[in-house]
Amino acid sequence: MRLADLGERSGVPLATVKYYLREGLLPPGRRVNATQAEYDESHLRRLRLVRAMIQVGRIPVATVREVLAHVDDDSLGLTVRLGAALWALPHPAGEAPGAPAEAAGPSREAADDPHRAAADLLVDELLARLGWSAARELGALSPAHRALVATLATLHRLGYPLDADDLLPYARTMEQAAAHDLDRMEQLPTPREQTEYAVASAALFEPVLLNLRRLAQCEESNRRYGL
Amino acid sequence: MRLADLGERSGVPLATVKYYLREGLLPPGRRVNATQAEYDESHLRRLRLVRAMIQVGRIPVATVREVLAHVDDDSLGLTVRLGAALWALPHPAGEAPGAPAEAAGPSREAADDPHRAAADLLVDELLARLGWSAARELGALSPAHRALVATLATLHRLGYPLDADDLLPYARTMEQAAAHDLDRMEQLPTPREQTEYAVASAALFEPVLLNLRRLAQCEESNRRYGL
Repeated sequence: MRLADLGERSGVPLATVKYYLREGLLPPGRRVNATQAEYDESHLRRLRLVRAMIQVGRIPVATVREVLAHVDDDSLGLTVRLGAALWALPHPAGEAPGAPAEAAGPSREAADDPHRAAADLLVDELLARLGWSAARELGALSPAHRALVATLATLHRLGYPLDADDLLPYARTMEQAAAHDLDRMEQLPTPREQTEYAVASAALFEPVLLNLRRLAQCEESNRRYGL
Repeated sequence: MRLADLGERSGVPLATVKYYLREGLLPPGRRVNATQAEYDESHLRRLRLVRAMIQVGRIPVATVREVLAHVDDDSLGLTVRLGAALWALPHPAGEAPGAPAEAAGPSREAADDPHRAAADLLVDELLARLGWSAARELGALSPAHRALVATLATLHRLGYPLDADDLLPYARTMEQAAAHDLDRMEQLPTPREQTEYAVASAALFEPVLLNLRRLAQCEESNRRYGL
């Protein structure tokens, strides 16, 4: 299809499509003559992903470019490819502005900050009890690990200390959700499409999950306490 | 304790404590003479909650005030009190800027927007299959319901259509999480403390949940595909 058709089928304004092309977020089409290029279904899929990351996920263009570089890296094994793409996404750390920049670096500040030290120990214990050996081994290399420690340190500092028994049921349900995610991902034919799906799911599915949680809270509260 | 002690024990700067008092986010202390007032553990608890909502949850002061008005309303039954406090919190809707303002109102736009209509049907089917009768009955009155429909409409528009089979396992895990939330909440002695806990959990626990999900994805991917 031509560029105009790509815009029309995706519902993305043509000027925006051209901007994504210039920024390298969308690979160039196959040139058919001096003024025209052909685009295919893979361009349409990529265009939707880019649009969703930028407009729904509010992810900065430079970050989108970095994530896509990993998505497109056919030299990587699937775990590393998925990991690299997902790690490049922003990680929400429930962190008070003005607090030590905990999400930024590894655990070296732990010695100076009792809340941080408590959070570090808590995550260690949690991962050990879950038997999540890869997550333990990667430790603070993983941005999700760092963001989790930072969030728990903030909660601890604010007077909401949690323990591993509090977190275990949530971690177990997230384990089930992750297995379901990968089941769904495996239905896609190529590693590239699989990685694209994982990125879309991580970036876009979070509001779905959070609102399901709020609905479930309301439902369970109705069941227990009536209206 | 005196105001200065309140600041010290909470770790919140005194100027900030005074600002929260002026804004009515913290109830006044018990006046002991012309220049002094006494504060107690309930002030400390409230101060931590306010600080957490504003600094970790990034919730606007006016919204915090509204949420706390429901938390403090002893005339309400527990379900309504919880519901009112949680409903007043911001709800993340994965919505493209420039898209129709779906989260703003009830379903009247559905007729004009096929994506919105599909999302409406999907949420109806999901709630029916879950047997979440309160959530069905409340429907678009609930901001979580509206935000969920808006998010699914956006995903549909962007070419990521989901069906009830996709959502059911997530909803079931959120149901378990909600039951665990309320179990924990019920350990607190008064309806006010219980509602405070629910608000803190809704506003602050979300980054914990999302980062556990990312960690679980990485772990499961390692298990299935190796490193």
